[in-house]
Amino acid sequence: MKSLFIGRFQPIHKGHIHTIKQILGKDEDIIIVVGSAQHSHTPDNPFSGGERVMFIKRALIDEELPLPRIDIVPVTDINIHPLWVSHMRSFVPYFDKAYSHNPLVKRLLEDGGIVTDSTKLLERTTYSGKHVRDLIRWKNSEWEKLVPPGVVELIKKYKMDVRIQEIGDTTTKQ
Amino acid sequence: MKSLFIGRFQPIHKGHIHTIKQILGKDEDIIIVVGSAQHSHTPDNPFSGGERVMFIKRALIDEELPLPRIDIVPVTDINIHPLWVSHMRSFVPYFDKAYSHNPLVKRLLEDGGIVTDSTKLLERTTYSGKHVRDLIRWKNSEWEKLVPPGVVELIKKYKMDVRIQEIGDTTTKQ
Amino acid sequence: MKSLFIGRFQPIHKGHIHTIKQILGKDEDIIIVVGSAQHSHTPDNPFSGGERVMFIKRALIDEELPLPRIDIVPVTDINIHPLWVSHMRSFVPYFDKAYSHNPLVKRLLEDGGIVTDSTKLLERTTYSGKHVRDLIRWKNSEWEKLVPPGVVELIKKYKMDVRIQEIGDTTTKQ
Amino acid sequence: MKSLFIGRFQPIHKGHIHTIKQILGKDEDIIIVVGSAQHSHTPDNPFSGGERVMFIKRALIDEELPLPRIDIVPVTDINIHPLWVSHMRSFVPYFDKAYSHNPLVKRLLEDGGIVTDSTKLLERTTYSGKHVRDLIRWKNSEWEKLVPPGVVELIKKYKMDVRIQEIGDTTTKQ
Amino acid sequence: MKSLFIGRFQPIHKGHIHTIKQILGKDEDIIIVVGSAQHSHTPDNPFSGGERVMFIKRALIDEELPLPRIDIVPVTDINIHPLWVSHMRSFVPYFDKAYSHNPLVKRLLEDGGIVTDSTKLLERTTYSGKHVRDLIRWKNSEWEKLVPPGVVELIKKYKMDVRIQEIGDTTTKQ
Amino acid sequence: MKSLFIGRFQPIHKGHIHTIKQILGKDEDIIIVVGSAQHSHTPDNPFSGGERVMFIKRALIDEELPLPRIDIVPVTDINIHPLWVSHMRSFVPYFDKAYSHNPLVKRLLEDGGIVTDSTKLLERTTYSGKHVRDLIRWKNSEWEKLVPPGVVELIKKYKMDVRIQEIGDTTTKQ
Repeated sequence: MKSLFIGRFQPIHKGHIHTIKQILGKDEDIIIVVGSAQHSHTPDNPFSGGERVMFIKRALIDEELPLPRIDIVPVTDINIHPLWVSHMRSFVPYFDKAYSHNPLVKRLLEDGGIVTDSTKLLERTTYSGKHVRDLIRWKNSEWEKLVPPGVVELIKKYKMDVRIQEIGDTTTKQ
Repeated sequence: MKSLFIGRFQPIHKGHIHTIKQILGKDEDIIIVVGSAQHSHTPDNPFSGGERVMFIKRALIDEELPLPRIDIVPVTDINIHPLWVSHMRSFVPYFDKAYSHNPLVKRLLEDGGIVTDSTKLLERTTYSGKHVRDLIRWKNSEWEKLVPPGVVELIKKYKMDVRIQEIGDTTTKQ
Repeated sequence: MKSLFIGRFQPIHKGHIHTIKQILGKDEDIIIVVGSAQHSHTPDNPFSGGERVMFIKRALIDEELPLPRIDIVPVTDINIHPLWVSHMRSFVPYFDKAYSHNPLVKRLLEDGGIVTDSTKLLERTTYSGKHVRDLIRWKNSEWEKLVPPGVVELIKKYKMDVRIQEIGDTTTKQ
Repeated sequence: MKSLFIGRFQPIHKGHIHTIKQILGKDEDIIIVVGSAQHSHTPDNPFSGGERVMFIKRALIDEELPLPRIDIVPVTDINIHPLWVSHMRSFVPYFDKAYSHNPLVKRLLEDGGIVTDSTKLLERTTYSGKHVRDLIRWKNSEWEKLVPPGVVELIKKYKMDVRIQEIGDTTTKQ
Repeated sequence: MKSLFIGRFQPIHKGHIHTIKQILGKDEDIIIVVGSAQHSHTPDNPFSGGERVMFIKRALIDEELPLPRIDIVPVTDINIHPLWVSHMRSFVPYFDKAYSHNPLVKRLLEDGGIVTDSTKLLERTTYSGKHVRDLIRWKNSEWEKLVPPGVVELIKKYKMDVRIQEIGDTTTKQ
Repeated sequence: MKSLFIGRFQPIHKGHIHTIKQILGKDEDIIIVVGSAQHSHTPDNPFSGGERVMFIKRALIDEELPLPRIDIVPVTDINIHPLWVSHMRSFVPYFDKAYSHNPLVKRLLEDGGIVTDSTKLLERTTYSGKHVRDLIRWKNSEWEKLVPPGVVELIKKYKMDVRIQEIGDTTTKQ
């Protein structure tokens, strides 16, 4: 049994790790789909697809999770709903079902013939990517408790916390 | 004389039918342009281009309108205004003028050398696609009075009202 | 029972008419999918999507075929195979099966869960779009025997035969 | 020394002229990058890329600025930040540095290995494209004092002020 | 009177200069449209849009041609013919006619309502961009006689001749 | 030290495995970049990006290669050379150099500031993706000797050899 776990992972936090462990505990292999992979340097997507793959890999290794059972696949957005399932499916290995709590995502997956499962996903206000990004933006070091230590180290080493603070809520357009 | 009637038809309602009959009554043939045709499963565009073509065809048949005088053409969005007229024109049969009340659309059409006509279009708060979608979203069965009966039947048969309720105002992004 | 009949119709010829009649004769309704609809003014796609819709409509009326049972839908190309079926499906009314003799198209349709049927399609060297375009390019009036008379009339009225001769095999690039 | 001066120039105003003169005064040649060049007929981008090139050229000639030292290059948007610097760079002659006050643009330029300079740019609420467009929209002739006289003349000659008033804040979508 | 002169200028050669002087001699101002501007590092498009703008500007200055009467505008390809004229037109200042000998380009321009003029363009096998690129590829220094001296200097200074030789006829795909 | 190994892997063969082992043997970690990842069902790209990730993962596990030191990242094509390096870089973790023998790819990488290394790559006519695909197309079972056994098993299990034979050299266009 192989399951998709879809998210943007901006950045990966301990809530994600908790979910991954639960799915593995059910004897299901996992494909981690890193969505909106083409974006970076925006308030909602500060880290590039490649940086997020790097973070996730580091966290999986630090947590000693079984790499043979886990794939990490960055997938670009396609903003046309009727194509989304086919687009996403073409970038990942074969799978049996997908985890999601979002009703639209569930609807699109199911309309595309994919079994969804949502009850086992942890979802908390504290452990959310948005909360982590906000804390970094506000220079509140509490964010370091929400993210795996190896990822905190990478973010600081490459001064990515400064990037988030600089971007603020502005856009490229002048 | 052949005229464009441009809209998104999400879904076709009795106000549209009223307009079509008026144009036919002026001895003009009609090309119904179904805009934003690539979208579906969004709050503003719940139905796919193909579903909207299917609804319109059904309504035309039920109303016994003259099919030889009416074309239905789905057209995708092009979000670059200077290209919109050329884009739209390349997907439809030759025509003589276009109906629109929207000042920007009139400006683009006229800058592209197309005669516009707007006085004969019916426009009411009740008979609007947004109002119909809102009523469906709020599970208020009043919407069934605003939409041709054959289309009501199709929406219910394929549980598309449930789709609108599920989508709500969320987006695909997680 | 509703069936897709997919082609580029550059332009519609008597072979297409023959096929349409056969499918109607089996008590199946038809959706005529006009592929590569965004192109025009090329050697292989001289007529725009809208011009092709106009030709087909004219031929259907002249042949007194039942318009309530036939839809005509222009569909743009999507040059990414894993998305093609979802893309095409989102622009057309619901259907039950599709006609194709092309092994790749059959494979893509079937991989997308669509039943295909190919045995009833007529296919001849004479009645091919390429042959018609070549005859026009060579100023050989034999092409007028291969195309429905109403379509011949439209092509000549709007000097589209001259367009094909001018385009030749050159491209826009200078 | 050659420097980029990046903006949307909707339209060019006297603040831009002031900046250009300052940069030239530092013995730096200038490449004027006209961003969002594909857009027109929107509230924020009423003038096409070509119209903006025409305005800027007229202003440079009227001000007797040295044309051999100034290039004007329209550049389309690319809405993917990691690609923006490479995209923009591929459309302009070689340069040494770039002027910007926007923190995100500075970050993207510097992450792309480009030296930025921002201290010399004039920035005022009065001399802003948005202010000029708002005044035109409100039919307040004060805008004519903010824009070079030759550009005022072009805008009036081609009734582009009427275009802005017609567009208002609506969009093409019906 | 203002005229378009459309080409790819890979690179600008003495044939182009000859044409520009002829058009200026007829008292027409010129907009030089640099086509396929998004490409570089291919056998047919070795120089980026920005490099070609740089070459042309250098040649115009060296030849002491009147810069107030000449614009240089890079324009990206749009590979959909029905949109090409609108696309190109939106990036250039207003103009009165266009020079072209290519029958397809003439057809597209005229179908778009643009007057074309072709008799005055010089066209020779020797003075062609393809010939210049081939000579560079074959390390035959004869190419230096076909290109304005300032441009030869830039190509050598930045080792762009080596780029052409390295690219050969291969493509990026591995 | 972390190195890119760029290819299309249609499919992964023993030559690729040989290269991967060499790079690992130099104490360099590897990011396997799966190019042209959006394509499938074409003669040159029969397998989807996700299928290729699945094949590679299987081969790495069977060969007992160290997964913590190896990333697999599918990357879509971008057919504009000046953007290719930035595009590719944004989808992969940070790296130090890249392996390539292709002169154009080396040129693009080096123009983008990336160190390249090419001497250690094995390249043979027998161990090539094209040769493997041709053998499958010709129903010559010799291909099974060139591909890791676990991948042979997957190709046969899912009848992908039949897919290659069906596709032949045709295209989707009808």
